[in-house]
Amino acid sequence: MKIQKYKHDSEYSYALGMTLTIELLKFKAKYVEKVLLSTRVEENENIELLKDLCEKNNIEIEYNEKAFNILSPKGNCFVIGLFRKFENKVTEGSHVVLVNPSDAGNLGTIIRTATGFDLPKLVIIRPGVDIFDPKVVRASMGALFRIEFSYYDTFEEYRKDFPKQNCYSFMLTSSKPINQVEFKKPYSLIFGNEATGLPEYFANISQTVIIPHKQTIDSLNLPIAASIGMFSATKNDMEI
Amino acid sequence: MKIQKYKHDSEYSYALGMTLTIELLKFKAKYVEKVLLSTRVEENENIELLKDLCEKNNIEIEYNEKAFNILSPKGNCFVIGLFRKFENKVTEGSHVVLVNPSDAGNLGTIIRTATGFDLPKLVIIRPGVDIFDPKVVRASMGALFRIEFSYYDTFEEYRKDFPKQNCYSFMLTSSKPINQVEFKKPYSLIFGNEATGLPEYFANISQTVIIPHKQTIDSLNLPIAASIGMFSATKNDMEI
Repeated sequence: MKIQKYKHDSEYSYALGMTLTIELLKFKAKYVEKVLLSTRVEENENIELLKDLCEKNNIEIEYNEKAFNILSPKGNCFVIGLFRKFENKVTEGSHVVLVNPSDAGNLGTIIRTATGFDLPKLVIIRPGVDIFDPKVVRASMGALFRIEFSYYDTFEEYRKDFPKQNCYSFMLTSSKPINQVEFKKPYSLIFGNEATGLPEYFANISQTVIIPHKQTIDSLNLPIAASIGMFSATKNDMEI
Repeated sequence: MKIQKYKHDSEYSYALGMTLTIELLKFKAKYVEKVLLSTRVEENENIELLKDLCEKNNIEIEYNEKAFNILSPKGNCFVIGLFRKFENKVTEGSHVVLVNPSDAGNLGTIIRTATGFDLPKLVIIRPGVDIFDPKVVRASMGALFRIEFSYYDTFEEYRKDFPKQNCYSFMLTSSKPINQVEFKKPYSLIFGNEATGLPEYFANISQTVIIPHKQTIDSLNLPIAASIGMFSATKNDMEI
């Protein structure tokens, strides 16, 4: 198998770094092709855990400096988990729906926050950033390996599969402040593209919601708005 | 004046791109040294606004391709606003306090969100990232030019200057969920370092607060936690 830079049509992606690779081995071991180590990796507790997980799951460890030059040219990463892309389709329950998300870091941050607020079911309406982009994996801090996710070509196709959802669309044109919204389960929290938001279409087919803020900024950025939305919808369910 | 890459001890910093430079000219024109243009800049409405603002404020526009190679090597930026660093010290009111923030992108995102929630008074306890780092300017999307900010060497020195603040410290060890907190003005919302959070010291000198989440993630990331904190503290003051 040839090590090469990630592309959207690659069969494989990779987890860069010790923490990510351990999350990968804990939750998606059966998709791991091999674990690459640099000779510069420090011998500490994590490396023992990593080796244990590899042994238990019969996963090869390979020392391969060249792979690090290709996949981590900045040179601050000494462990790489190489894995086959997998499916883990969204099931019934409450969902986070991202319509045309374009930024890998934002998507990863939203996945991480969604996992924290017990909303690990993510729908992406195309076109949307590739969830297996290593930048998404990294920004999710491994939470990607715990969630369900599905891509749809259109919002209508998603609604056909999940007709019972109560849909809440976060839009700057809404007149319903988030504090006055009661989120009824199962809900779908819907957020638009970073630059363009949601099309007006969503005002006709769902309850719109606004997070009020001063006009000194055009909008909250996407992971911030999504996080405040998820926090508000789940706050009565969360315990310390 | 020699164009060189930004350093912490530089007298100048710069705003990369049209939107940032226009924000700079609108709010901090008197600190602008000059505006650099690439010959590749598109002639559109914004360029007219930019030229108007420069003319009104008697600011020189210079076509300088070499500067773009130095300051924006990726080559996707055609306008740069060069400005002298300025002071705009925090005054009385409610504050956001960041203790040892280390990431420029996070700081910029927090500045932007704070501006949106009408909390444009930021205190940073050293060591902390340099607020004039161009990455902060960019992530703030220009909101940096609208806020008050002060650096302190210790939290105690800050408290001496602002003894009336009601202090709320966001800590994972807290037993007070954010929904049960009534934020009394003037308040200080205090957040710790990305990796290490706040020292236990803060539990002794303030009301601690926790944003409850599942243990599937170690913590919410800093801009997310700070944004949920700011949203919760200000939600009764915000209008559409």
